[in-house]
Amino acid sequence: MAERHAALLVLEGHIIDSMMLPQLMDLVMDLGGAFDIQELRVGHRKTDTSLCRIEVTACDAATLDDIVRRARELGAHTATEEPVRTEPVAAPGVYPEGFYSTSNLPTSVMLEGGWVPVERQEMDCAIAIDRAAARAWCIPFYEAVPGLEVVVGHQGVRVTPLERSRQMEIFSFMASEVSAEKPKKLLIGKIADEMRTIRAESGRILVVAGPAVVHTGAGRYLSRLIELGYVQVLFAGNALAVHDVEAALFGTALGVNLESGLPIEHGHEHHMRAINRVRAAGSLRAMVETGQLTGGVMRSAIVHGVEIVLAGSVRDDGPLPDVITEMGEAQRRMREAVPGVRLALMLSTMLHSIATGNMLPANVRTVCVDINPAVVTKLADRGSWQSIGLVTDVESFLRELAQVIEA
Amino acid sequence: MAERHAALLVLEGHIIDSMMLPQLMDLVMDLGGAFDIQELRVGHRKTDTSLCRIEVTACDAATLDDIVRRARELGAHTATEEPVRTEPVAAPGVYPEGFYSTSNLPTSVMLEGGWVPVERQEMDCAIAIDRAAARAWCIPFYEAVPGLEVVVGHQGVRVTPLERSRQMEIFSFMASEVSAEKPKKLLIGKIADEMRTIRAESGRILVVAGPAVVHTGAGRYLSRLIELGYVQVLFAGNALAVHDVEAALFGTALGVNLESGLPIEHGHEHHMRAINRVRAAGSLRAMVETGQLTGGVMRSAIVHGVEIVLAGSVRDDGPLPDVITEMGEAQRRMREAVPGVRLALMLSTMLHSIATGNMLPANVRTVCVDINPAVVTKLADRGSWQSIGLVTDVESFLRELAQVIEA
Amino acid sequence: MAERHAALLVLEGHIIDSMMLPQLMDLVMDLGGAFDIQELRVGHRKTDTSLCRIEVTACDAATLDDIVRRARELGAHTATEEPVRTEPVAAPGVYPEGFYSTSNLPTSVMLEGGWVPVERQEMDCAIAIDRAAARAWCIPFYEAVPGLEVVVGHQGVRVTPLERSRQMEIFSFMASEVSAEKPKKLLIGKIADEMRTIRAESGRILVVAGPAVVHTGAGRYLSRLIELGYVQVLFAGNALAVHDVEAALFGTALGVNLESGLPIEHGHEHHMRAINRVRAAGSLRAMVETGQLTGGVMRSAIVHGVEIVLAGSVRDDGPLPDVITEMGEAQRRMREAVPGVRLALMLSTMLHSIATGNMLPANVRTVCVDINPAVVTKLADRGSWQSIGLVTDVESFLRELAQVIEA
Amino acid sequence: MAERHAALLVLEGHIIDSMMLPQLMDLVMDLGGAFDIQELRVGHRKTDTSLCRIEVTACDAATLDDIVRRARELGAHTATEEPVRTEPVAAPGVYPEGFYSTSNLPTSVMLEGGWVPVERQEMDCAIAIDRAAARAWCIPFYEAVPGLEVVVGHQGVRVTPLERSRQMEIFSFMASEVSAEKPKKLLIGKIADEMRTIRAESGRILVVAGPAVVHTGAGRYLSRLIELGYVQVLFAGNALAVHDVEAALFGTALGVNLESGLPIEHGHEHHMRAINRVRAAGSLRAMVETGQLTGGVMRSAIVHGVEIVLAGSVRDDGPLPDVITEMGEAQRRMREAVPGVRLALMLSTMLHSIATGNMLPANVRTVCVDINPAVVTKLADRGSWQSIGLVTDVESFLRELAQVIEA
Repeated sequence: MAERHAALLVLEGHIIDSMMLPQLMDLVMDLGGAFDIQELRVGHRKTDTSLCRIEVTACDAATLDDIVRRARELGAHTATEEPVRTEPVAAPGVYPEGFYSTSNLPTSVMLEGGWVPVERQEMDCAIAIDRAAARAWCIPFYEAVPGLEVVVGHQGVRVTPLERSRQMEIFSFMASEVSAEKPKKLLIGKIADEMRTIRAESGRILVVAGPAVVHTGAGRYLSRLIELGYVQVLFAGNALAVHDVEAALFGTALGVNLESGLPIEHGHEHHMRAINRVRAAGSLRAMVETGQLTGGVMRSAIVHGVEIVLAGSVRDDGPLPDVITEMGEAQRRMREAVPGVRLALMLSTMLHSIATGNMLPANVRTVCVDINPAVVTKLADRGSWQSIGLVTDVESFLRELAQVIEA
Repeated sequence: MAERHAALLVLEGHIIDSMMLPQLMDLVMDLGGAFDIQELRVGHRKTDTSLCRIEVTACDAATLDDIVRRARELGAHTATEEPVRTEPVAAPGVYPEGFYSTSNLPTSVMLEGGWVPVERQEMDCAIAIDRAAARAWCIPFYEAVPGLEVVVGHQGVRVTPLERSRQMEIFSFMASEVSAEKPKKLLIGKIADEMRTIRAESGRILVVAGPAVVHTGAGRYLSRLIELGYVQVLFAGNALAVHDVEAALFGTALGVNLESGLPIEHGHEHHMRAINRVRAAGSLRAMVETGQLTGGVMRSAIVHGVEIVLAGSVRDDGPLPDVITEMGEAQRRMREAVPGVRLALMLSTMLHSIATGNMLPANVRTVCVDINPAVVTKLADRGSWQSIGLVTDVESFLRELAQVIEA
Repeated sequence: MAERHAALLVLEGHIIDSMMLPQLMDLVMDLGGAFDIQELRVGHRKTDTSLCRIEVTACDAATLDDIVRRARELGAHTATEEPVRTEPVAAPGVYPEGFYSTSNLPTSVMLEGGWVPVERQEMDCAIAIDRAAARAWCIPFYEAVPGLEVVVGHQGVRVTPLERSRQMEIFSFMASEVSAEKPKKLLIGKIADEMRTIRAESGRILVVAGPAVVHTGAGRYLSRLIELGYVQVLFAGNALAVHDVEAALFGTALGVNLESGLPIEHGHEHHMRAINRVRAAGSLRAMVETGQLTGGVMRSAIVHGVEIVLAGSVRDDGPLPDVITEMGEAQRRMREAVPGVRLALMLSTMLHSIATGNMLPANVRTVCVDINPAVVTKLADRGSWQSIGLVTDVESFLRELAQVIEA
Repeated sequence: MAERHAALLVLEGHIIDSMMLPQLMDLVMDLGGAFDIQELRVGHRKTDTSLCRIEVTACDAATLDDIVRRARELGAHTATEEPVRTEPVAAPGVYPEGFYSTSNLPTSVMLEGGWVPVERQEMDCAIAIDRAAARAWCIPFYEAVPGLEVVVGHQGVRVTPLERSRQMEIFSFMASEVSAEKPKKLLIGKIADEMRTIRAESGRILVVAGPAVVHTGAGRYLSRLIELGYVQVLFAGNALAVHDVEAALFGTALGVNLESGLPIEHGHEHHMRAINRVRAAGSLRAMVETGQLTGGVMRSAIVHGVEIVLAGSVRDDGPLPDVITEMGEAQRRMREAVPGVRLALMLSTMLHSIATGNMLPANVRTVCVDINPAVVTKLADRGSWQSIGLVTDVESFLRELAQVIEA
């Protein structure tokens, strides 16, 4: 029999819940290796963690290497671990070739002094290291400045898959989309409970909202949530704000009367006139302060101190003076607002929801609401137990949510 | 210059509203003819009808013939009209070759004694004639019995396009689908008004409902409409009734708890057990009378004397004893229930809604509700001003409708 | 410490692949029990099976019972197993209360003489037993005749989850839908390979086809597959056959010219005239034999001896004489055609695909093609590794498949 | 009888085809006015234009005013017309209150010297006037500089509805979306004909493409069209270019192997590594020139001199150095590329297609391809006869188009 190459892998944490163990077994067999479970201690209580020591063998070193590399991505680590390797950034905005590309899962890196958690965890970034300070953090491309040490390769990097919570059944059950054909009453009740808990603990709630919130007449419910203190951060685009102002000034959204649902004369112009008014005033805040804007979501958000980031897009009319038109700046402003956010409600906007989702660590809970099942599937698919997707009318969702929150 | 062939066409009724006149002009030019408007009297008040006499010419008889034939389909008739031609049915269930194929628009035929309206107007039928009684009526294939006189060709057939009502703005405006991004509050209010008017005039309201009505937890609102007397006819399939009984017996629909939205143990079996119970009892009515069925849409419908037709399909489990499994019989029963219906609410079921839509004359108003825009577009496209389509959650629609009706 | 109740469960087979083991651990913890893995032998080669003996404990007998009952559904069995319990059918078409409701997974029952596989496995049925012959088989409701012994409860019933094949990567990888945004070329190539293998081994291939196959102009490619011997069974409804005949007689489908894509004069009547012709001829076969039907999918299927089942629905016009209008009869005919089928192509028809899917054992591979992702998700979700769903144009799929098969 | 107020309106052009006349009649009746057709000359040949003089009356001046104002929007003008009124821009980027808001239809303004066509026609702009030069042109907000004269009110503005072409049947017939259930072969053939005609006349063809073009493996067909000279302008975002480079460098798109359709190891990182390489090189052109980028759509476009505008968005990773991240600048660059474009192919991208659609005059033909019918409906709805929407797989569309073009 041929010589075999072996490595001892360790899995720790909620290795059953998180599917770490079966996925690892699967992986080994897929790649033609073999394994021997040397120790398996499974936690029997909710607070227990489990441990598995598993010897992996393969008939050549390359295969074993491949297995170990991919096992790491599942959260395994080797019994003996070496520190991360780094290279300095050479040119501004460019990572070193071979940089470690991050996921949104909690990650640690081994420095000389031991394991250090990576700060500002975000997917599709690189990891910068300050050895002196024993710190590590995610950097998007624009933060790659010459001289900064950046992790290369997989050595000394450990990710921790999220376990499935047994308390918050609603999030754990709803691993993927909630189809249009499911009852949503209790689900919305659970989301409201989660929001109350977060606020009681001074956590932040982020709303990402598309213009359909205004078109469907749901603006009043979002305003209510803001007034009740359930929104700390609002991400949106030009369209939400424009149609919200249009609704406040003219009672229409894209020329459709919000009360009657009927199109009105020259209504299509209203959004242009709304934009012009805000441009003339200088800003939404100026509209509020001069008494020109007396209602709507944007007014509520301004009056109640919500942190607002309006990120532009190439399809914008105007835009409003409040809209950030430089995309790097818009991302920076969104990233600054993310820390402390524990729940994100993503309401009928694919563009801004994807942008936001990319910036959120995996342990931020997300609720995605859209009438298009394809959008919900795309957004709710974050590879974690933390996402709920609802295929429904955004007006219906917000109305029910506001009612439950207020009850 | 070549000789030209001419015919004098007459348009009467709401020829501007119904787009009859511009469509005719368009048609003539498309086919290479020419026209001369000899008289155009346009009604200036709502109750006025208009009249247009228009001479059509073409350079050959065949083209002129073609123009005239197609102009008839638009509602034009020739200044002098000849009686319909008929042929007798030769074999059972088979129309004579060349039969006139009906639309869902009001149609008249010229018999020797003058114009006679066609009864039981329905699309995709033939027209049977009883000359002695001076009557004409639509027949589906299975009513074609040997000896019956059936109209062949287009001569002596006149259809009347529907005008766009100026009173009922909501139906006239909503010529096609209402997208998910429109406010629906007032629209639902208008539908409620229409329902009240119809009931005040003893008209009948038909509900066609799919199982999503139960799955989404909207069964209670449909029951409420039934109890309040706003449903005279209910068309559905096996699934609606099965899941309704399952909900009443076990609190689940397809194994999902209707209160919590959570899947439950062995829940998937519940629908099988529900079916078995009804089969053991003999019928839904027997379940109600023996006190085994104490809630749900089917119970409400039975108790309040709603005319129920449950039409089966090849995907049915069971089915319930109440389900009609022979499709010809199911169509017959549905046709018998249609007369007197003035409004049809089609709720989250494509199969039964299309079957129903095919049987309804064009002047029956239809409201189609589905979360899938493709379904709404398909159902609402009836070629008339009488259809409203709403892209929304059926639970949200029925909840709002029941609230408004009850208010 | 309180007394604990214990049971010894055994898992055998591909318990890692099939997720049996982690799901069981999960289940026990969810229900508040505890477990102890007493033995775990994991097969290291593809042909090896694994074995796990696991002791489950709970603090009360009811919980333990619940755990054991649900563990069975996952494929576990108890170390010592008792024979099934049965009760006789009392009334025709009614199972005994408490009947065991089947899944589509391979199932065995323990009779006095040992384990017996259940024949004609199908979901949502009961299991009939002939103790004398030591046989067990699935029965739909209509086969429940008085006196027949039917399994009640879960005792003595064992289901075997399917393992994920490592050879047929394409089916194992594509556990769920293939989105519109994925390349499909190689996938279609793999499906073609599978079709060749099945035919080389004299397995049967089933096509379930909706009218969109004809509307999109893909009929010619389906005909080609039939002519090449790759279709043994065809399930469809009235519409496919009607539009196929319409296309053959008039070159249109629902009045749209299949070459030009343009609507044609009086085209909508064509499907009515096509129906009338077939009704006059007596059957599709008669149309073929008398030379009236010289092309199309139905002709190909008749000429090449494909087993055809046309199951009607309540929305059918006509229908054609060949359409089975009694739904119990239609289901019987479909069930008779299923044995021997190893692959089912479900093409743009939700109604007939669901009906078919309900009848297929879990080990029949299914390929679901539809342009609507919601339909694909619904159809491909069979809880097994055997399903592929493609979100694409059916014309594009069939064209490519026919090209690859022919190459 | 009360005194009535009257105005004489004139309609000229293809007033039947363009539905101008019936819409005007409808409008007058809707607003409670009355009309009298004083002259109606209908062109009988394709090249003839028609003329209608129609007296409109209302019982008060305000109603008459309203009618006249809205009639203008339909293309009517008054028998005697007065010059436009203008006001100067007061603040940069702000139009004068009451500005005339443009549509995408051909528009003229009356200056002292007569009617002047508006240049750079685009919807949702204002009209700037240079009286000295007798010129008028559309300006977006950012071109509103203090002192510029801008049209206010409707007086002296005339729009010309597009007529429905009788030659280009395919565009005129396909007024709205082409459903997934229609044959598309001939339609694609007609689009190819149109492309050949445009190129023969040195017109420009614009392609707006989303990343699905690369994901589905259709990049090679788009490259082929570019190489054959059928693409002069390419609008896209960061994602198309990134995945195109990823495909060229690694054979994957978002980590899915484009040949096999299978996900590959660490594939998700590939797009990050692709971005990093281009950032290191400095630009896509540098990648091409240094031989690092040897295939793909972007390479084809660069090598063949296509005018490329890559407009960023807030969801971009990276982005590539070639992507314009300031949205005002991106719009400017897109606007500069539009003149001379006669056909726009919009392929699987909603964001960039809407941005582009907003900038195109109504007479530019657009073909919108997406697998999501809701996207196609939204994009194809340009209120003109110039739009075709196809619900289909973009790979299938481009493959067929490239084949036909090359044949």
